[in-house]
Amino acid sequence: MSGGHHKRNGTHYHTVHTSRASVGRLSLYLRRLEALLEEGHGRVSSAALGEALAIPDTQVRKDLAPLDCHGQPGIGYATADLITAIRVRLGLDREWPAALAGVGNLGRALLRYHGFPRRGFRIVALFDSDPGKVGTAVDGLEIHPASRMTEVIRREGVELGILTVPSSSAQAVADGLIGAGVRGILNFAPGVIHTPAGVSVVNVDLTVQLEQLAFLVRLSAPERGPATTR
Amino acid sequence: MSGGHHKRNGTHYHTVHTSRASVGRLSLYLRRLEALLEEGHGRVSSAALGEALAIPDTQVRKDLAPLDCHGQPGIGYATADLITAIRVRLGLDREWPAALAGVGNLGRALLRYHGFPRRGFRIVALFDSDPGKVGTAVDGLEIHPASRMTEVIRREGVELGILTVPSSSAQAVADGLIGAGVRGILNFAPGVIHTPAGVSVVNVDLTVQLEQLAFLVRLSAPERGPATTR
Repeated sequence: MSGGHHKRNGTHYHTVHTSRASVGRLSLYLRRLEALLEEGHGRVSSAALGEALAIPDTQVRKDLAPLDCHGQPGIGYATADLITAIRVRLGLDREWPAALAGVGNLGRALLRYHGFPRRGFRIVALFDSDPGKVGTAVDGLEIHPASRMTEVIRREGVELGILTVPSSSAQAVADGLIGAGVRGILNFAPGVIHTPAGVSVVNVDLTVQLEQLAFLVRLSAPERGPATTR
Repeated sequence: MSGGHHKRNGTHYHTVHTSRASVGRLSLYLRRLEALLEEGHGRVSSAALGEALAIPDTQVRKDLAPLDCHGQPGIGYATADLITAIRVRLGLDREWPAALAGVGNLGRALLRYHGFPRRGFRIVALFDSDPGKVGTAVDGLEIHPASRMTEVIRREGVELGILTVPSSSAQAVADGLIGAGVRGILNFAPGVIHTPAGVSVVNVDLTVQLEQLAFLVRLSAPERGPATTR
């Protein structure tokens, strides 16, 4: 079928892997540039930008080449312009209204996560299946039942869904969000969720990052032996 | 001395990038294999394993080659043996006692995240600077003040620290954890934290993943702009 990075979640991830890697680096550059601008650096070279992130300047220049912002030899990039260009490229030059489904501890933590609104991600709707939560408000935002998804999501112009429900209900809630018009899902529930063509999913599995850490800690402890399997 | 991937956080990330990518894939294989075993598949081919993850079987075989588990042509790998071999490689064949610093919403969510104990990550100590929280317990685990870090971390044999404090105190709390003997930090606080040689850091920036999602959603909406790939 379609040249397809939307067939399903797993497929999606890997066929656009290159894009994702470069998108990830653009996010890192953006964070670094904002810090540099705050410190008063109106100009920055690709070498200086790459250095703090340990990314070779050839890679930095390659990543930045498609942007509408060109550096000058010996002078570098205008920091503010480069920030703007990256924000445009990443789609951060606009607001992204988002709905959060599953108002537990993680949902509440994300709702209060200052990083989201700073980047234009505004949580404008909450959903939960718990009748004890429905009708109550968190930080001034009412919790709606799943039955009102379509109505609320259309009214609020929601495009992204943040899924913080148990894995047992993840697919059903994702289907509900997608049916209501959501075009992308950030999934915190363990396990794979399937989405139709045109709907993107990014899975967040916090255990993967803890496994990376364990692996690195183990690597750095030579006394344990690199391949000691005991 | 160790070959220089511990200088600091940023450096660390990129010089071991290849390892991290392959570690990430091993984590994916592990999840997929566990599902296959549950479904009754005692054997699995590299092609079948790669297919659901959209990873080419040549890459799968390359990733699995260093493991102490070899597939047989036409038969494949014994699923259970491969699970064990990956767990050993990732350092999941043991328990990793962890301390959590910062018992807010995110901290509580992680404390109740079932994925952690399933992978051997056991949160055995809690720290918070809020005098109103110190001395109380969450899920039977007492919240200690930072002043007791060294004592508690040594007593519990804690090796990993999970940092869910505000970014303003992240470096100080990380320094405390490291001083008390922690060898790896999973950092949820925005911003860079610096660690001495031999201490690993994995940063979790939830905004990065939401940015990836926004980028993908934008790509899949050709009507919005020039970057049409589909």
